[in-house]
Amino acid sequence: MLSAIPGFRAVIPAGGSGTRLWPLSRAGAPKFLHDLTGSGRSLLQGTADRLTPLTGPDGVVVVTGTAHAAAVRAQLPGLGEDQVLAEPSPRDSMAAIGLAAAVLERRHGEVVLGSFAADQVISGTREFERSVREAVEAARAGYVTTIGIAASRPSTAFGYVHGAEPLGLEGAPSAVHVSGFTEKPDAETARTYLASGEYRWNAGIFVASTDVLLGHLAAQRPALHDGLRRIAAAWDTPDRERVLAETWPGLERIAIDHAVAEPVAADGGVAMVPGPFGWDDVGDFNSLAALLPADDDAGSKVLGESADVVRVQSAGSVVVPASGRTVTLLGIDDVVVVDTPDAVLVTTRARAQQVRSMVDAVRDHGREDLL
Amino acid sequence: MLSAIPGFRAVIPAGGSGTRLWPLSRAGAPKFLHDLTGSGRSLLQGTADRLTPLTGPDGVVVVTGTAHAAAVRAQLPGLGEDQVLAEPSPRDSMAAIGLAAAVLERRHGEVVLGSFAADQVISGTREFERSVREAVEAARAGYVTTIGIAASRPSTAFGYVHGAEPLGLEGAPSAVHVSGFTEKPDAETARTYLASGEYRWNAGIFVASTDVLLGHLAAQRPALHDGLRRIAAAWDTPDRERVLAETWPGLERIAIDHAVAEPVAADGGVAMVPGPFGWDDVGDFNSLAALLPADDDAGSKVLGESADVVRVQSAGSVVVPASGRTVTLLGIDDVVVVDTPDAVLVTTRARAQQVRSMVDAVRDHGREDLL
Repeated sequence: MLSAIPGFRAVIPAGGSGTRLWPLSRAGAPKFLHDLTGSGRSLLQGTADRLTPLTGPDGVVVVTGTAHAAAVRAQLPGLGEDQVLAEPSPRDSMAAIGLAAAVLERRHGEVVLGSFAADQVISGTREFERSVREAVEAARAGYVTTIGIAASRPSTAFGYVHGAEPLGLEGAPSAVHVSGFTEKPDAETARTYLASGEYRWNAGIFVASTDVLLGHLAAQRPALHDGLRRIAAAWDTPDRERVLAETWPGLERIAIDHAVAEPVAADGGVAMVPGPFGWDDVGDFNSLAALLPADDDAGSKVLGESADVVRVQSAGSVVVPASGRTVTLLGIDDVVVVDTPDAVLVTTRARAQQVRSMVDAVRDHGREDLL
Repeated sequence: MLSAIPGFRAVIPAGGSGTRLWPLSRAGAPKFLHDLTGSGRSLLQGTADRLTPLTGPDGVVVVTGTAHAAAVRAQLPGLGEDQVLAEPSPRDSMAAIGLAAAVLERRHGEVVLGSFAADQVISGTREFERSVREAVEAARAGYVTTIGIAASRPSTAFGYVHGAEPLGLEGAPSAVHVSGFTEKPDAETARTYLASGEYRWNAGIFVASTDVLLGHLAAQRPALHDGLRRIAAAWDTPDRERVLAETWPGLERIAIDHAVAEPVAADGGVAMVPGPFGWDDVGDFNSLAALLPADDDAGSKVLGESADVVRVQSAGSVVVPASGRTVTLLGIDDVVVVDTPDAVLVTTRARAQQVRSMVDAVRDHGREDLL
């Protein structure tokens, strides 16, 4: 049984449109609002389900765009009114997480805040919990703490965290110092990283005391820090909209990695807990396929109603029947068919990473309404 | 300008479901009701458009199933009430054409009747007219006359007509005797036929005097002949439904080829006019593609709104966007996508002939409603 971690709260930044999952994922219904694993819960709901036992029922806040606030509330009816923070416009992860930190600190005083993206899939609840508990201990010791994901292949799609010597903390026995972060590497570099055993994927999970995090932000990005503090001071007052309107548009757009994690790591202030749980960012329809059970003996996958798909001499397909219509495949292998009420995509598993180029083509075609 | 041929009438048997064109063609909306060439007219309408100038406005009758009579009338509003003959159940082409012959002979006395299937595409109006005029002349001379289609490839999907010495009729200079008909041959036989230059495709076009046709039928298939005569006698009377109910279900199911054309050809009673016009039976989505203009420089074809298709790195596709939705293809070649409001088919051009097996699979899947 999981039990809440005293003084721990979580923020779920729910942004990003998941263009490589078009036409399932749309600007108006982005990736995190979809059930991409057939579990019956959206990625956002899965993230909240995972965190709430660790924070207690009131311990999770979601930061999302105003356009999606209603959908987030609808999917997470257990959240109180003040647990959804709506951003007037996207300002990247530092603003989103920094806003949550500043608002929560005003409301509750100093807390340990963990940030967990809304659009990732994690398996292994116990392992996840253990990692978070260690990360919270490291955060209490003053570190900005990330949870590093085991790199299962030399991916060029993720950033990496370089682990160093053990932290030596009693409550966080597996935590290590972080000697640095690297952006998405080239294939050769990625192979070197994998071979060394010292690198893990950066999934954007950061756990830190609000005091420590906002202190680093004040030192690294004072204007952004001051703006977020000003907004947080007004958040739970009638002035919120006015101050947001004045301040938000001018905030720097920067990822927490660049604003805080990288410079602070260089000063020895970042720790990593190696996460032993399964993780996937469900980046495209091919990686989605890996999370679904086989629908037949030929490796075919279906996200949705299996009864809505009919295959004849077809192996290895990925079908998303999301319009209620019947999708039929005859004599074609490894195809991806995503069927939605206003658009259907036909591509191959090998091309799944390039779906973004279709989004560009649809935009060029003058059909912004489909994006 | 075309002018009507005195004493000539045409029957359009409108049956067959076009299973290889599923899910566009359905039991409830079969092939002949669809515009498969992007001309703006269905195959049925195109057939009627082609024949009406040769018969005069009242000279065409359509024989179709009761289920499709309303759709036929809606597509051909120029037809009078008595120009659509509804069959209670399918009884193959001899019953359909024989019924038309017997009804028309009662109404108008002896006429020359030509039979032209509702689901074929013909190009070259002038050449078609010239062939029909010759065939009518040969029919007036007492022959059951077919119009043979130039065999452009050694097809195993069609029957063949074997031409012999010229008829020597002044009004039908190109007409020849027919020494026999053959069913769909194997590939080797088809190659021999093509090489000989003596064989043409049998498109099921037959032109004969009603007197001659019904006389042959009486000799070859007396029970069928008598049944059709009985029905025809009642057709334009209050007894039609009663006599149909009594007689129609017992009629022999047989094609006109077997009932009349083959045995009569053996007796020297069949002639052929070689048709110099373009002809296609639009048997599957690949042959449909050949009738459509290219939609890009990569040989892609669209039946429907070109604006409803977006391709990225995709060549040679055949897309039928028939639901109003946008169909998008990424990095996939020679694919066939047929998008309808309740079912989508994804296959390849090479597999187009096997679409019937998908119809079987959908039936096995318990979705008769989609057929």
